Order: sequence, then C-alpha cells, then structure tokens
Amino acid sequence: MLQRNTPRSLIRSNHLKTFARGIKSTVQNTDYKLQQDDIPQDGTIFSMIQPTGMFHLGNYLGATRVWSDICNLKTSVSLKDSPKLIFGVADLHAITVPKPHPNSTQLRKYRHEAIASILAVGVDPKKAIIMYQSSIPEHTQLHWILSTIASMGYLNRMTQWKSKSKAESTADTNVRLGLFSYPILQAADILLYKSTHVPVGDDQAQHLELCRSLAVQFNKMYRTKIFPIPRTILAPTKKILSLKSSEKKMSKSDPNHDSVIFMNETSDEISRKIKSALTDSIVDHFEYDPENRPSVSNLINILSGIQRKSIEEVDQEISCMNNYKSFKNHITEVLVEGLKGPRLRFEQLMKDPAYLETVLEQGTQGIGKGNSTGDHR
Amino acid sequence: MLQRNTPRSLIRSNHLKTFARGIKSTVQNTDYKLQQDDIPQDGTIFSMIQPTGMFHLGNYLGATRVWSDICNLKTSVSLKDSPKLIFGVADLHAITVPKPHPNSTQLRKYRHEAIASILAVGVDPKKAIIMYQSSIPEHTQLHWILSTIASMGYLNRMTQWKSKSKAESTADTNVRLGLFSYPILQAADILLYKSTHVPVGDDQAQHLELCRSLAVQFNKMYRTKIFPIPRTILAPTKKILSLKSSEKKMSKSDPNHDSVIFMNETSDEISRKIKSALTDSIVDHFEYDPENRPSVSNLINILSGIQRKSIEEVDQEISCMNNYKSFKNHITEVLVEGLKGPRLRFEQLMKDPAYLETVLEQGTQGIGKGNSTGDHR
Repeated sequence: MLQRNTPRSLIRSNHLKTFARGIKSTVQNTDYKLQQDDIPQDGTIFSMIQPTGMFHLGNYLGATRVWSDICNLKTSVSLKDSPKLIFGVADLHAITVPKPHPNSTQLRKYRHEAIASILAVGVDPKKAIIMYQSSIPEHTQLHWILSTIASMGYLNRMTQWKSKSKAESTADTNVRLGLFSYPILQAADILLYKSTHVPVGDDQAQHLELCRSLAVQFNKMYRTKIFPIPRTILAPTKKILSLKSSEKKMSKSDPNHDSVIFMNETSDEISRKIKSALTDSIVDHFEYDPENRPSVSNLINILSGIQRKSIEEVDQEISCMNNYKSFKNHITEVLVEGLKGPRLRFEQLMKDPAYLETVLEQGTQGIGKGNSTGDHR
Repeated sequence: MLQRNTPRSLIRSNHLKTFARGIKSTVQNTDYKLQQDDIPQDGTIFSMIQPTGMFHLGNYLGATRVWSDICNLKTSVSLKDSPKLIFGVADLHAITVPKPHPNSTQLRKYRHEAIASILAVGVDPKKAIIMYQSSIPEHTQLHWILSTIASMGYLNRMTQWKSKSKAESTADTNVRLGLFSYPILQAADILLYKSTHVPVGDDQAQHLELCRSLAVQFNKMYRTKIFPIPRTILAPTKKILSLKSSEKKMSKSDPNHDSVIFMNETSDEISRKIKSALTDSIVDHFEYDPENRPSVSNLINILSGIQRKSIEEVDQEISCMNNYKSFKNHITEVLVEGLKGPRLRFEQLMKDPAYLETVLEQGTQGIGKGNSTGDHR
C-alpha cells in the first residue's frame, strides 16, 4: 500500500502502473487533500458514523470533513445527480456498545447531535442525502439476507471482533451476537444503496473487504449483478491518535478526556488540552517522524489535517520553531481557528430541531422512501 | 412434563395443582384435541411455518391444523378481537437452508403454496391474520435489536444449531451466520406482536425458552414491560415420524419421498406409501407402544391425529384387526378421507391468486401496516 505522505505525482504514476497491469486496486489513496479527480463522476459515495457522543477531531478529519469536502467537489446541486452522496448516522450499530448500554433518551440525543455535527462541518443537504440507519428498514432486511450467506469462520477472523470481544469479556459466553454480526450490518448499509465508493478510515479496511466478498458471493449465488463491488476511499488525513498516548487512537470512550479534542470545546479548553498533550524529550526542533517521535508527529498530522496542507508543507512552516511553547501555541491557534466555525454552527443547529427534521425528511425522500408503504412483498 | 396420552382429567388436576403451588408452567399441554379452555380468552396467539416445499402430514398435524382448530375455537369473527391470531409464512427463515439454496422463483412459488395450504386446511382469514414474514420489515429490525442483547454462548448451546451446523459442514468455517442467528429471528417474530401464546412442536421448546429469556433481558435492560413472556402451546398430536425410519421425524428434505405423505397426494399415492410403510415383526395385533413398536405407534399416532381421537380410542378401534392388510387399509381410508378436503381446496385456491393476495393485504392491514410509510424514526 502506498504511504499517505507519498508525493501526489508518485501516487498518480503508481495508479497508472496498476491500471496498466490490469489490476484495479480496491483502495483509492488520496493525498493530504481531496481533489476533483479523487471522487468519481458517477456512482454512489456512501459512509456512516456512529452516534455514541460528541464527535472529536478524529471523527472530523477521518469522516465528517471528508464528507463535507466531497460535497464541495460535487458540482451539481441535486440529491439525484451523480455522484449520489449518502451520509448516515449508524444508530443501529451504536447499540452494540456493551457498557454502559445507551438508554433511549441518550441515544436520541446523540443521534440529534450527530446530524447537527454533520451539517455543522459543511455537509450540504442539497447535495447529499443525510439519514439515520434505523429510519430505513431495508438496512436490517438486507442484513438478514447477507447473514444467510456470510461464513461464521470469516467473521471470526475480523480483527475488530477479536479485540472488542476480548475487551467485553474474558469468557466468550457473555459476548453478544450484535458485536459478531456488526460487519454484516455494515456491508448491508453499503450494498443497499449499490454504493461504488466508501470513504472510511484504514481500521475499517478489513470490514470493507468482507463487504466486497459478500457482494461477489451474493451476485454469484443469485446469478445477478445487482451489487457493484465498492471501492474504499481512504481519508486524506492519517488516523488521529490520543493526545495522551500514541499507542491508541483518539476515542470518545477514553476515560481520560484530556486525550481527546471534542468538536464543541471552547478556545480555553483546546489551549489547556494542547498544553498538556504528550510530546517527547527533543525540545528545540519539531518534524514529522512517526516512528521515533509519534506524539509530535500526531500533532503535526493534526496541523496538516486542519489546514489541508501536506506534511512537508507543515514541516517547513514549523522548522523555525525552537521551543514547545511556540509549537503548541501554533497548534492551539490553528485548532481554535479551524474548529470555531463548526462549533458555532453546531450550537445554532441544535437550537433548530425543526430544520434538522426537514433535512432528514428530505434525505428519506431522496432515498425514494417518501411514499413507500413499508411493504416489500 | 406431562405425557401426551395422560387422561385429560389428570392433566386438568395437575394443572390445578401447579396453579395452587403458584408456579405457572411456560408450556401449556393439550390432549389429543384442542378444546375451548386450551386457548386463552385474550392475548395473542402467534405461529409461523417455513415455506420450503409442499406441506406434509407432520406440518399439518403439528402446525396448520392446530391453527385451523384455534380459529374454530375463537368465537368472535374479527381480526382485532381477542384472542388475536397471527399465522405466518417464515420466508426469511427459509433462506437459511444451505443446499440447494432456493432461487427466487422457487421461493415465491413455495410461499404462494404455503398461503394456499394454510387456507386449504381451514385457517379462517376473517379470524386470523395471515402474512409473510418478509412483508413486515419490523421482523428484521427487532432481530437486529435482539441480537445486540443475545449471548453468543447461549446460541452455541442450541441443539438445532449443533445438529444443523454439523450436517452442513464438517468444518465450522463454512457454516453461515443465518443458521446461528436463526432462533433470534424466531424470537423477534414472536415478540414483535407481543405474543402471549405460541403453538409449536416440542422440537422448538428450546428456542421458545431462548425467546422468553430475551424478552426478560430486554424488559430488564430497557426498564420496560413491553414484551409479555410468551407461553408454549404444544400441538395435541405427538411428532409425526418418517414412514421409513422411526429414528427421524417426517421431513420434506428426506431424499426418500416414500417416507413422507404430502398434503397433495392422490388416494393411490397414499395407499402405496402406507402399504410400503415400515412396521415390525408382530403381525397379528397392533397397539400403541412407542418404546417397543415405534413404527406401528407412529401409524397409530397418525390415526389419532387425523381423527382427533385419543390414542386409547384408536387402540380400542384397531384391537379387532389381526393382520397388516386390514390395519393398513384402515389407515389408508382414514388418510384419504381426512386429506381429501384440504387437497381439493388447495387445488382451487392455487387457481385464484387474486384471492390469496386479498387475504395477505387484509392481514397486513390487520397488523396495522396498511397505511404505514415504512419510516420508523
């Protein structure tokens, strides 16, 4: 696989080589910033995010801002025109979280916040369908159908299942079926809309591979070509790590909230968290070196992501900084500036539930469910 | 558990004793024939059958005729009045059959025949809702929700899973998820309608227990009383065995079709199959003795089932027969006479697809789905 900081020209030439050999990669690599030719001219781009609490920097750079950029790159202002864009809130996946099991009031709140967060970062409801997974019953219907062809052995080999089930219980007996069948619902989400391109983080690459395999199996078994084989569009920013440990990714379930920058943080909170962020013992110069300086590299990656600049460009800009104070002040400024707009728009949107409802209704109609009877004989 | 051939008076007195001790059994035993006080005055009676081909004697005596008898015992002619009756065709369960995997044309044909078969045996669409599982998307929606609380360990202990997965593959890796999650969909079917009573065969007792356990867990987890804990109504006829081996139950998937009496067989076919049915070496008297004379006892059980007579009464009637010819002629006569009506009505119904559609539409409306949008936010 290509490195994310490979120069764009090299990626392009590699793409061409791959193409010339007649092998079409299932993963579409993009550089630090999505550009017009990174998104297809036709087909359907589909992605979802779990509503398990306020979104953070990792969700933003890995998902919602990518969706927003895709909207900006779509020239036609129509839900129906190609490429069709569908972005969703995976509320059915959210209830696989074992403990604390979300109650219904909290789940509705999270779902509401998720829609507002998606709109706040600039996803355009005139260009993209925005919806809840649970509002479209066909997700669970296709989930059942795919579960009749999905192999137990294949599911058992999923890395995420292995780590999550291990975390949930030392004895397998207490692990819930939903955690095991999680990637099958994900495959149903994608295939339902005949999606051709799926922007995801690289931790989802294995699940996408399972989805492709199910599409191939289904088409073969039922002698049809109904499901296109979807390609992965990897987010242009590398995975954002915890501010307190470069061993794990930034996660809202991390008990130490100082490790996470949430999308609704005030300037003061951002400043405090960046000040306390883990770094290393080299205090007089800063550069991207993920192997030897993972924490500093994570901060540089954040700068690159927020500013849509290449790692090389950021490295150049910070080369003059010779102490942590100036380095961290710079990061704080960039973050405060970059997150201010989404935060203010989020606050506004949360005061306008009627508008959020309108967006969801429009999305449901865009899917073609407006006048459906729910009767699928 | 009480024996099925225990005299009715004893069952009643045992019921009273159980009641007096304050322990409510989850299984409702009935004698050779359903009677008024075997069915509840309120609540919902729910059951389903898989459309995997023409129904046979086991499906009839174990399921569809029980449903027909329940209809006859319901005094009110209204879909809405208590007890609410819902009988369905489990087409989503049918696609878990591994080989040959049914194609869509065949599946539609089977489903069509299943509805006609249910009506042919006298299930009254004025009193009972008749529907396909796949026409009501909430079945798979609740299936997903229940799968987030169902324990993998519990599912692994299901006897039917163990035997089916063993039959499907020697290596677990080829077994499909749908076979494993089968009983969770079954639980969703039942709980969706807040069913209080479920007529099933005794091979489904373990799945019903899982269903009850899920209802209890769900109510506890979400602090609700939404799901009643359903009781089992065991069919009044004991399980019908293969005519060729008393080791297995009568099954349409049996490669030897002479072991099965299908509901659409002609008199000649019935006669031939009964003539070739397995018996034993005692040729001059016939009586019910399932331990020592299992094949003969199976034939006596069929006589009891078709005629709605107790085993004792049948034993009395055949006590005068002293050779296989007269015994088997008697069985043939009873079967030809008993199955003629359903067979002729089935043939008529299959010629009237518009009527079958009307029944299904009426059922969907009875469930309250007539004007629904399929949007369940």
